[in-house]
Amino acid sequence: MSDGPSKPAMREALVAAAFELFLERGFEQTTIDDIVALAGVGRRSFFRYFPAKEDVVFPDHERSLAEMTEFLESGAGDEDPVKHACDAARLVLRMYAEQPSFSVQRYRLTRKVPGLRAYELSVVWRYEHTLAHYLRGRFADRPDGALRADVIAAAVVAAHNHALRTWLRSGGESDWVAEVDSAMAFVVGTWGGHPAEGAGEGESDEVVVLVASRRAPLWRMVQGIESALGESRQA
Amino acid sequence: MSDGPSKPAMREALVAAAFELFLERGFEQTTIDDIVALAGVGRRSFFRYFPAKEDVVFPDHERSLAEMTEFLESGAGDEDPVKHACDAARLVLRMYAEQPSFSVQRYRLTRKVPGLRAYELSVVWRYEHTLAHYLRGRFADRPDGALRADVIAAAVVAAHNHALRTWLRSGGESDWVAEVDSAMAFVVGTWGGHPAEGAGEGESDEVVVLVASRRAPLWRMVQGIESALGESRQA
Repeated sequence: MSDGPSKPAMREALVAAAFELFLERGFEQTTIDDIVALAGVGRRSFFRYFPAKEDVVFPDHERSLAEMTEFLESGAGDEDPVKHACDAARLVLRMYAEQPSFSVQRYRLTRKVPGLRAYELSVVWRYEHTLAHYLRGRFADRPDGALRADVIAAAVVAAHNHALRTWLRSGGESDWVAEVDSAMAFVVGTWGGHPAEGAGEGESDEVVVLVASRRAPLWRMVQGIESALGESRQA
Repeated sequence: MSDGPSKPAMREALVAAAFELFLERGFEQTTIDDIVALAGVGRRSFFRYFPAKEDVVFPDHERSLAEMTEFLESGAGDEDPVKHACDAARLVLRMYAEQPSFSVQRYRLTRKVPGLRAYELSVVWRYEHTLAHYLRGRFADRPDGALRADVIAAAVVAAHNHALRTWLRSGGESDWVAEVDSAMAFVVGTWGGHPAEGAGEGESDEVVVLVASRRAPLWRMVQGIESALGESRQA
């Protein structure tokens, strides 16, 4: 396929042309021929860059998914898995934030066009699946590992999307780092701080959580703590 | 549109015919004309029951979404919102469980057909949106209410889907009630037990959660409990 010099500009021209047409005529009513005509390139060039029309709207997700996978695999195995998953999700938000006007324009387009909305959901699902796969590996020793992994992956994605939507609705003007920080803090605050079992050989950094009714007398709570610590230290 | 007696059997015949053809020829390759021909009914009958070809595969989601919305709204406002959202998700799983062979067959079909997979994701998104809307209302007084609602809604849906997939992969043979119980217990265990603020006028049933490092001495934990209870009782 090396029938000419690599032209990243051609790829950008195709994206710009497609966006203009989608906004003008709608997604369904725009053909690939319309796009290549406006971009002034041949039809084969289109398919060199994009497998389908939808991919023009989400040109960076393949790269972003690969980046996320690579990041997740880069963990040494003793990192807090929940925090690591949150940091992986940050990479995706950064990708959006690097191109504010493109991202905001796409957000408005995607909300209008059902076909694109469906495509976006399938992309979101791939991110969630990638995170869940990583977390399942890290939680493999727990009896509820697969369930825990699936739920936390969904929570990370939902927190990411919450931060992303807040930023997009501000027209890309709000502080995306602050948005993602508070969203991820919620997830890490819920489940974080559980490094791999047996990571710190001797003294474990395990966390004890006591849940008690406010009506319980204090001595019951102290008893609960003593008993939890005792079991945990024997284990 | 009362040009004849209501015929639930016709609806079922259309679903059965569509499934047979989707499995045989694939989803894209099957037309609505093919379906009505096999079912032995007229084309107009099809559109009386289904807005589009996809809806034949997911015939009960509109009803199920309406049921979920009604259930969510039935709360008196003092129920634990997380538990109530989990109970709403149970209704959906029950819908699948009521027709085991249909559900299992559809699961296999959906995994093979990208167009159906995309449609299913859009349905899942509507459930999540419905749950998030309810939770946002219940968490309206909290500074992080919207974020919390979005994350918990996603967690409920992920837990539901985990239970559903486990059951579907067993060929509809495993105990779906046990699957959904353990999935929802995980979510309620994470966030449940927070009834509406000020719900129980006098003595609140509020729960105190203490999170502490195992390395902390016991007196620090007792101090933490005392201080938490003190603040809470003054509030």
